[in-house]
Amino acid sequence: MMQQLRFGLIGWGYWGPKLARNLESLPQASLEIVADLNPLSLAKVKAERPWIKTTSQIEDVLNSPVDAVVIATPVATHFELARKALAHGKHLLVEKPLTANVAQAEELIELAERQQRILMVGHTFQYSPAIAELRQLIEDGELGNIYCVEIERLNLGLFRSDIDVIWDLAPHDASILLTLLGQSPTRVQAHAHAHLHPTIYDVAHLDLEYDTGATAHIHVSWLHPTKVRQVTVIGDKRMAIYDDTNPAEMLKIFNKGADIGVDPIVSYRHGAITIPHIEWMEPLRLECEDFAHAIRSGEQPRANGQAGLEVVKILTAAQESLRMREQESLRMREQELLRVREMA
Amino acid sequence: MMQQLRFGLIGWGYWGPKLARNLESLPQASLEIVADLNPLSLAKVKAERPWIKTTSQIEDVLNSPVDAVVIATPVATHFELARKALAHGKHLLVEKPLTANVAQAEELIELAERQQRILMVGHTFQYSPAIAELRQLIEDGELGNIYCVEIERLNLGLFRSDIDVIWDLAPHDASILLTLLGQSPTRVQAHAHAHLHPTIYDVAHLDLEYDTGATAHIHVSWLHPTKVRQVTVIGDKRMAIYDDTNPAEMLKIFNKGADIGVDPIVSYRHGAITIPHIEWMEPLRLECEDFAHAIRSGEQPRANGQAGLEVVKILTAAQESLRMREQESLRMREQELLRVREMA
Amino acid sequence: MMQQLRFGLIGWGYWGPKLARNLESLPQASLEIVADLNPLSLAKVKAERPWIKTTSQIEDVLNSPVDAVVIATPVATHFELARKALAHGKHLLVEKPLTANVAQAEELIELAERQQRILMVGHTFQYSPAIAELRQLIEDGELGNIYCVEIERLNLGLFRSDIDVIWDLAPHDASILLTLLGQSPTRVQAHAHAHLHPTIYDVAHLDLEYDTGATAHIHVSWLHPTKVRQVTVIGDKRMAIYDDTNPAEMLKIFNKGADIGVDPIVSYRHGAITIPHIEWMEPLRLECEDFAHAIRSGEQPRANGQAGLEVVKILTAAQESLRMREQESLRMREQELLRVREMA
Amino acid sequence: MMQQLRFGLIGWGYWGPKLARNLESLPQASLEIVADLNPLSLAKVKAERPWIKTTSQIEDVLNSPVDAVVIATPVATHFELARKALAHGKHLLVEKPLTANVAQAEELIELAERQQRILMVGHTFQYSPAIAELRQLIEDGELGNIYCVEIERLNLGLFRSDIDVIWDLAPHDASILLTLLGQSPTRVQAHAHAHLHPTIYDVAHLDLEYDTGATAHIHVSWLHPTKVRQVTVIGDKRMAIYDDTNPAEMLKIFNKGADIGVDPIVSYRHGAITIPHIEWMEPLRLECEDFAHAIRSGEQPRANGQAGLEVVKILTAAQESLRMREQESLRMREQELLRVREMA
Repeated sequence: MMQQLRFGLIGWGYWGPKLARNLESLPQASLEIVADLNPLSLAKVKAERPWIKTTSQIEDVLNSPVDAVVIATPVATHFELARKALAHGKHLLVEKPLTANVAQAEELIELAERQQRILMVGHTFQYSPAIAELRQLIEDGELGNIYCVEIERLNLGLFRSDIDVIWDLAPHDASILLTLLGQSPTRVQAHAHAHLHPTIYDVAHLDLEYDTGATAHIHVSWLHPTKVRQVTVIGDKRMAIYDDTNPAEMLKIFNKGADIGVDPIVSYRHGAITIPHIEWMEPLRLECEDFAHAIRSGEQPRANGQAGLEVVKILTAAQESLRMREQESLRMREQELLRVREMA
Repeated sequence: MMQQLRFGLIGWGYWGPKLARNLESLPQASLEIVADLNPLSLAKVKAERPWIKTTSQIEDVLNSPVDAVVIATPVATHFELARKALAHGKHLLVEKPLTANVAQAEELIELAERQQRILMVGHTFQYSPAIAELRQLIEDGELGNIYCVEIERLNLGLFRSDIDVIWDLAPHDASILLTLLGQSPTRVQAHAHAHLHPTIYDVAHLDLEYDTGATAHIHVSWLHPTKVRQVTVIGDKRMAIYDDTNPAEMLKIFNKGADIGVDPIVSYRHGAITIPHIEWMEPLRLECEDFAHAIRSGEQPRANGQAGLEVVKILTAAQESLRMREQESLRMREQELLRVREMA
Repeated sequence: MMQQLRFGLIGWGYWGPKLARNLESLPQASLEIVADLNPLSLAKVKAERPWIKTTSQIEDVLNSPVDAVVIATPVATHFELARKALAHGKHLLVEKPLTANVAQAEELIELAERQQRILMVGHTFQYSPAIAELRQLIEDGELGNIYCVEIERLNLGLFRSDIDVIWDLAPHDASILLTLLGQSPTRVQAHAHAHLHPTIYDVAHLDLEYDTGATAHIHVSWLHPTKVRQVTVIGDKRMAIYDDTNPAEMLKIFNKGADIGVDPIVSYRHGAITIPHIEWMEPLRLECEDFAHAIRSGEQPRANGQAGLEVVKILTAAQESLRMREQESLRMREQELLRVREMA
Repeated sequence: MMQQLRFGLIGWGYWGPKLARNLESLPQASLEIVADLNPLSLAKVKAERPWIKTTSQIEDVLNSPVDAVVIATPVATHFELARKALAHGKHLLVEKPLTANVAQAEELIELAERQQRILMVGHTFQYSPAIAELRQLIEDGELGNIYCVEIERLNLGLFRSDIDVIWDLAPHDASILLTLLGQSPTRVQAHAHAHLHPTIYDVAHLDLEYDTGATAHIHVSWLHPTKVRQVTVIGDKRMAIYDDTNPAEMLKIFNKGADIGVDPIVSYRHGAITIPHIEWMEPLRLECEDFAHAIRSGEQPRANGQAGLEVVKILTAAQESLRMREQESLRMREQELLRVREMA
């Protein structure tokens, strides 16, 4: 017989209600307790689900008899909450990104291992049927060797004041790259600009290199007139575009490419386009199923702590690249100032 | 009465025939002589236009009584040909980019001034009616202060072996930025990758900063499954997208934006989209008309030598940024190698 | 203080759950009882809403103290159920189409009047914000005199065995035309074909004429590879397209047209396209609000019995036109047969 | 050795110059003489092609030593001109539609046979590579049995005063249907409306039935805000859409359909979409090649007189259907008037 699972949820903001709905719909599972600092949020929970306990105290969740805790709070709070939950022997699903830096992520992974508990990160796109289809195509060699991947995630808003556009949007893309390419980049460099608020980047470009020779580029923006969510994979045999905003034609595979030769150096092939039929399933539902399965079986979920760590590494490397670029800008401006003074 | 203009054309490749057709259709103008090194190209000219002189010798063009010379040859040859033409007192239209480096462009500008001859560069997009409409919107303050411009110019091919994707495609975008923003960037940085041929970049991203605080990004690629030619301008009042591949809706103006406040820090406006009706005219035709007008009136054409120089500066700065990035990569790899050896 | 409203719902199929959700979210309103013949449907209701009474007996709804009854059953049952509900003094919302023929609709309208109860029909599109905007444009003369309206409602499925594609899909379009043109057609003719099942039309074209000279055409189909839901309005000043499948550009107004003159007989104007920003609200929610408002105020709702009757008249006229066309076909084939026999 | 072909062309309007360009580019072929009633048109011919004879007298063409005559004049003049050309022993290409009625078309076919000359009609779409691909798919059974074909050919303009929208646009669609289905319809019915000019239809719908049970619908309009040129073919195995306005995705094949069963009566299959790569070739060029080939080989061209006759039959049947519908309307209005008088 299947083990009954009881869940506790911390954070009733954007993701909280969506996670609750999916956890509740799992077989042999129940959401027992919800914590949030905002009394209005708790009142909403109570109105719709009178049978659920609500609290503003984390300890109430940790000390409750739930098997697993789901954390959907701002990233700055992830590490402390996650550490405590694991220490209390709870299985754990943390919203993306896992933590605000690499050391924290590594500590959580180690702690989960020591406690023999599941540590999972809410990288929803790892459960997208279209991404799964695309990954399978790559694994089967249908696209050939991968030259590069270009990702765009653009829209007007939603501006956040606690994190910049990279930490807000790029976790999706870093985890998509991880899924598609099956490895981490060897180099990450970034350009980013702050147009709305002087200290918070709202447009960013990340350039990634892999030791296979593949490259990738992530463009994220809070300042774009239309919603763009597109992943383009360029292989030497075929090319593919995954457009998340076009449900009827989500994945297009182009049987075309450039072949390297002698004369001409490059020649082009043009063939058919194929749009596979992808049975839609809610990725968040599949994610919650994987969490339940991992807890019950002891097997690692697809979006495990290690995947979460790799994503944090990419975000941190981008951040570091930006910090160095700014220091260099500053140094150049100082040198110029010195020159001007000397000339005076 | 309007002065009769006689033109000579050097180079019968991709642009040559297009330029010829437009020069011929100008009032009171004639194409008299065409030079090319390929006898087959000259035979084609002769077959269609038996009345035009053809030659493989540049000198035949320079010594002919034509008023103006048009150069549509590979960029590496531009400087020498252009210098000679100006020295022979010919007015001059050179295909983009003007030259392969800044010093050459500056020398040509100086020479044209000294010789009192028109020096023009074939930056066709400066004559695109849609770009003109967009520039007017910006000048009239319809978009407000410009936050950033994002440009994409992607397609499969055509790979070139004499220049990389930046020198091939980005001249269009650098000249569009110049037209739209009315100034040159203070900083240009680039990422580029060579997937097809080890030493020729086929995908590149340029990041530009302006002293107004505006930023711009150019993405050019020879490796993309679809044809993308898009310019997005983000202002603090309105936003606009110019899509060159969609003739029926080439320019879209979005009456939407993000406003900076206190609480919330950022709020959003959503209004109507407007698609102005743009009367189509062939940009190359307008370019040739401007050339003829400049010769006759002595006024500077829109795409004059100075505009050509500014474009070369951007391309050169991108190139320099890539060179430095590669040197740094090399230095890092050497240091790593040293460390490994010391440890051995 | 606002009057508390209690609702009963008959029919838990496609529309039932959607209606329930919206009725429940109205202020000062509650759904008290649900009737359906299928015990599985009732079990589903009970599982999600344990506080609601469920029954398989219509009488339980009619005899309950609810103020209003909502009927969401197959069209063949509408008349009997509606008559009883009105006879029991209930206010009434019936799913579209109101009844299976004109006489029944007229009887219900009369009965509602006699009983002084609200009779409303679920013509959701009368509450669509985009249709409301389009109607306003027409009323304000922005499109000029209306030449014609073309409507397409196409998709693969869902085939129904109780009614044909005209009675299934065209009620939407008939009610949209009624809303936009503010009058009923003077003539309705139809072509329809049955490809899947020999006696059930799956593709149909309706041609409508109005005494203003305007015409309209409705194309409905269960056999189309893509989902099309488009209304095109051609005025002599402007034209508009409402595309229900494109949320970002739902309504496009084309400032273009054809002007009648002498030489040339017709000349064309080409101006800008405008896409107004339409604040999305769920039409079904607005419909339920209008129902509640009508009950409380005694005012007629927008989609009242009369509107429902006009729609039934159009559907019936189309049906009659098809019947006559088939009789004529039959007669022609018989005559031909006779001729063949005489010749033998 | 290939026979040298000399062409004469009558009519220098919309199609004349296009036909001239393609005839001239054929191997071993020359355009020798052009006739038109408008001296300005002839002057244009002379300016661009000084070597061609121009004339306003048909007889000059007929008495010249050309092998073949191409007629690109208004349809009302086709029959007389064509009859004379055949009588003079010329091979003949007539622009679509072949004639203004069935008897004329039949007479031309008979005359061509008697004179042993090629009679061809300018049904360009029979030479469209996309239509050829679609026809091949149908012939190979890839789409299964054909349920129906829906064609739309809509745009703003160009209004013509000599013929209505059916005779202007529907010849394309009638010939496409002939090509795709390989047979003629057994019944044609039409609705048409005249909004701009009281006696010239500007919007029309044709409904066609075939003895295989297949049906087709043609919608043509001069009054539409966007350009639509779409052919949808619904088979019981697959469905296809040919969109002439989308060069990158001109033909889409949907591996989906509806299957007839018992319970449920209809079930749906959803599979991949395929967009074959279609090498673009100018249909008019292929048409001219077929004409030259037919003259040299004596083989019938694809778009032969018989195909032209079948198209005229469809147009005439539509016209007849409209005439009867109007008579019926008139009769009904008269009866109503009589009733009103009797009641007075």
